Amino acid sequence: METVRVTIWNEFRHERENKEITAIYPEGIHGAIAAGLRAAGGFEVAVGTLDEPEQGLSDRRLAETDVLIWWGHVAHAEVDDRLVERVYQRVLSGMGLIVLHSGHFSKIFKRLMGTNCSLLWREAGEKERLWNLAPGHEITQGLGDYIELEHEEMYGERFDIPEPDRLIFVSWYAGGEVFRSGCVWERGNGRVFYFKPGHESYPVYHNPEIQRVIANACRWASPRVVSSTVVARQVKQPLEQIAAERR
Amino acid sequence: METVRVTIWNEFRHERENKEITAIYPEGIHGAIAAGLRAAGGFEVAVGTLDEPEQGLSDRRLAETDVLIWWGHVAHAEVDDRLVERVYQRVLSGMGLIVLHSGHFSKIFKRLMGTNCSLLWREAGEKERLWNLAPGHEITQGLGDYIELEHEEMYGERFDIPEPDRLIFVSWYAGGEVFRSGCVWERGNGRVFYFKPGHESYPVYHNPEIQRVIANACRWASPRVVSSTVVARQVKQPLEQIAAERR
Amino acid sequence: METVRVTIWNEFRHERENKEITAIYPEGIHGAIAAGLRAAGGFEVAVGTLDEPEQGLSDRRLAETDVLIWWGHVAHAEVDDRLVERVYQRVLSGMGLIVLHSGHFSKIFKRLMGTNCSLLWREAGEKERLWNLAPGHEITQGLGDYIELEHEEMYGERFDIPEPDRLIFVSWYAGGEVFRSGCVWERGNGRVFYFKPGHESYPVYHNPEIQRVIANACRWASPRVVSSTVVARQVKQPLEQIAAERR
Amino acid sequence: METVRVTIWNEFRHERENKEITAIYPEGIHGAIAAGLRAAGGFEVAVGTLDEPEQGLSDRRLAETDVLIWWGHVAHAEVDDRLVERVYQRVLSGMGLIVLHSGHFSKIFKRLMGTNCSLLWREAGEKERLWNLAPGHEITQGLGDYIELEHEEMYGERFDIPEPDRLIFVSWYAGGEVFRSGCVWERGNGRVFYFKPGHESYPVYHNPEIQRVIANACRWASPRVVSSTVVARQVKQPLEQIAAERR
Repeated sequence: METVRVTIWNEFRHERENKEITAIYPEGIHGAIAAGLRAAGGFEVAVGTLDEPEQGLSDRRLAETDVLIWWGHVAHAEVDDRLVERVYQRVLSGMGLIVLHSGHFSKIFKRLMGTNCSLLWREAGEKERLWNLAPGHEITQGLGDYIELEHEEMYGERFDIPEPDRLIFVSWYAGGEVFRSGCVWERGNGRVFYFKPGHESYPVYHNPEIQRVIANACRWASPRVVSSTVVARQVKQPLEQIAAERR
Repeated sequence: METVRVTIWNEFRHERENKEITAIYPEGIHGAIAAGLRAAGGFEVAVGTLDEPEQGLSDRRLAETDVLIWWGHVAHAEVDDRLVERVYQRVLSGMGLIVLHSGHFSKIFKRLMGTNCSLLWREAGEKERLWNLAPGHEITQGLGDYIELEHEEMYGERFDIPEPDRLIFVSWYAGGEVFRSGCVWERGNGRVFYFKPGHESYPVYHNPEIQRVIANACRWASPRVVSSTVVARQVKQPLEQIAAERR
Repeated sequence: METVRVTIWNEFRHERENKEITAIYPEGIHGAIAAGLRAAGGFEVAVGTLDEPEQGLSDRRLAETDVLIWWGHVAHAEVDDRLVERVYQRVLSGMGLIVLHSGHFSKIFKRLMGTNCSLLWREAGEKERLWNLAPGHEITQGLGDYIELEHEEMYGERFDIPEPDRLIFVSWYAGGEVFRSGCVWERGNGRVFYFKPGHESYPVYHNPEIQRVIANACRWASPRVVSSTVVARQVKQPLEQIAAERR
Repeated sequence: METVRVTIWNEFRHERENKEITAIYPEGIHGAIAAGLRAAGGFEVAVGTLDEPEQGLSDRRLAETDVLIWWGHVAHAEVDDRLVERVYQRVLSGMGLIVLHSGHFSKIFKRLMGTNCSLLWREAGEKERLWNLAPGHEITQGLGDYIELEHEEMYGERFDIPEPDRLIFVSWYAGGEVFRSGCVWERGNGRVFYFKPGHESYPVYHNPEIQRVIANACRWASPRVVSSTVVARQVKQPLEQIAAERR
């Protein structure tokens, strides 16, 4: 198995601005995710955050990324439209993208979905149970029938997304809602995985099962081919005419 | 069956600027499509063109449209981004959208697909045969196994679109290519149909079978519900808590 | 809107053998469903039950059926394989099929799915809440965000079905499970809707929202075309050769 | 990358009964496919044929198979129904299945599809060009825009299959037809690939690009998990009650 080059992009505001969240993620959410990937093995991990130069994602960094993980929440609007466009074209060219939790409202996710990606939510620290609907899929390898998170933010339906190519997880919430919490789509040559868990005020990314899902998803989403889908191509001569002339 | 309010939007440049095309479509491409719908019956037809005030699509017009038909080619870039945004939200809210031919590169189609929508093409007036893959679908009612167009522009794969919810037509071209020439998707509450035929220099929209497909598609795409998908909604109290308190 | 000819097929054993169930469904489950459809209007309703001649579904009856509703539970194995084959071919030819509740294990449903259709279950009379994931779909017209059933049998994931063409409902259960409780597929020229509610010991089919879903589904599943998909067809002469000879 | 255990099952009648076909496939169709896999590397290859004991697929052989390749034509009806049932359950449990060419009418393929799998055909040795619609998919790695076969049997639409999870190839035929010639589906825990090329009277399985597709498909279809989907499971106690008692 080849090494997958993963870049974890994190908004990185909550963890610096709120002591309780700093306590949960002293190295940032990206730090916890990186630790999980390093423990799993087989990944070369880089990180980028919003307040770094080039918003943490230079052209070069992006060119060297097989799979990009995206966590954002309060600062979606601050992400530069040109960066969004570059990430978008990289995904269509074959880079994998894993969008986490509140990233459902990120510019890049809405751009790739072509919908508003709206949903219900409630922050009440209630129990979430993610049911595994796809035991034969790469993303669920090593998991059992479900994952339980004792305290999580609730996200509820209707989630305004295109019908997923494959529905991987559906979540149950103690408060009475359900949510399509793991979904995959292909766009251009790239693969996209939306994974719901990860509110900043709960230690979700330290959970070994959640870490396993993210590692599995990084392997699944790594590119099989990288080529631009931007340019339409005019073919002047009919293939059949060329063939006839060859004879 | 209720009357469906259809608005045909046409760039309307070729037909005014090129005599040969004027000869084919003296009333514009929109005029030919409108004639087809009026002959079919059951439609209230309006038209809008790019060089009219508000680019032919006022808020009011859009609010009174059940299904929007879109034909554009050389002036995609001139369509106002705010208009694109309004059409986009109307589709997600439930309005049907039928994108014709070179509209594959329109801003609104690319926005809804989340891909580049690129393809191969060749203008050689060659034969196109659209095979009917979905005889049980509303859009193909009254058709046989295929539709033949003696002269059409070639569009070839790979067409950079998300996997269609349902593939309706696949085209064969004399020159040796194939194309997914009829595709449907749902986005938000709305339905989208891409239909390939209709290069401006061939009288495709006068063809009764093509007219039938467009009329069928307008019925299929007319809204079942109209409601915004923009706003995420916070639900403060768990449903189960509310239920417990009612007891 | 044309009248849709619906045949309700019911195993009809529980209601005759168990007094408590007789009390809930004195006219049988089929009687309650029929009453709902008649109240909705636009349907011509027939019924058939397992212990009638020809197991309640003669060739003639089947030929005059646009949409077949199927309820079975303890006697799946008694349904004649030849009857299953006839129903199967009718569905592929264009007849709609609505499979209710324990019908997930019926021969006809397993035959159309190509999977085992297994699931978890628990009969504890617990609360079920069906979330509406497809507000723009014909089947959910007139419904709100969800349907609540105070007492139902639990069906849980993983439900062994092919990925639905469209996921209409997902159920939440008080006991902690979720279930894809409304799913649609197309097979041949026909449409199939699986709808989970309806355990015999709860008065689910008297519920007006459940009745509405079934009526909506009957309209959605009624045939657009009826033609056999059994026979492969040899085409001796290339279409292009025929075309050349016509010239 | 782990070794994938592939079993190639071949009817093996044409090659023994018709001298011209013997000349093309002196080691049988299975022999040519096996040679391709061995040259690719990473596979442990076994073969089975219809006229062997246990029709070439013992329980033990099946238990040791990760991916089964199936070629049949004139003797579909002779394949034992119990063998079909065993293969069916193995696929649902996670084994991959690759169905080639005339295998579209095999019992196992029809069983998994839940449709008649009928199509048009013409044996005229005409040109087939398979367009690659999924350059980002595992199955097309190493291929270009299309594969050309100078002489093949024509298979045409409408192919009576459920909408594929992903459409990989669409074929163009000189005679004027198109065909969905590469399609994938998931059933239970297993993956199914239908691949059209391979009429017995043309040397298609000696073609390196066709061999590459088959090798790619064997890797893609190898199981990620193997577990039965037959048994429904009753869960007597609500998960939430168990959780409450644990506290």
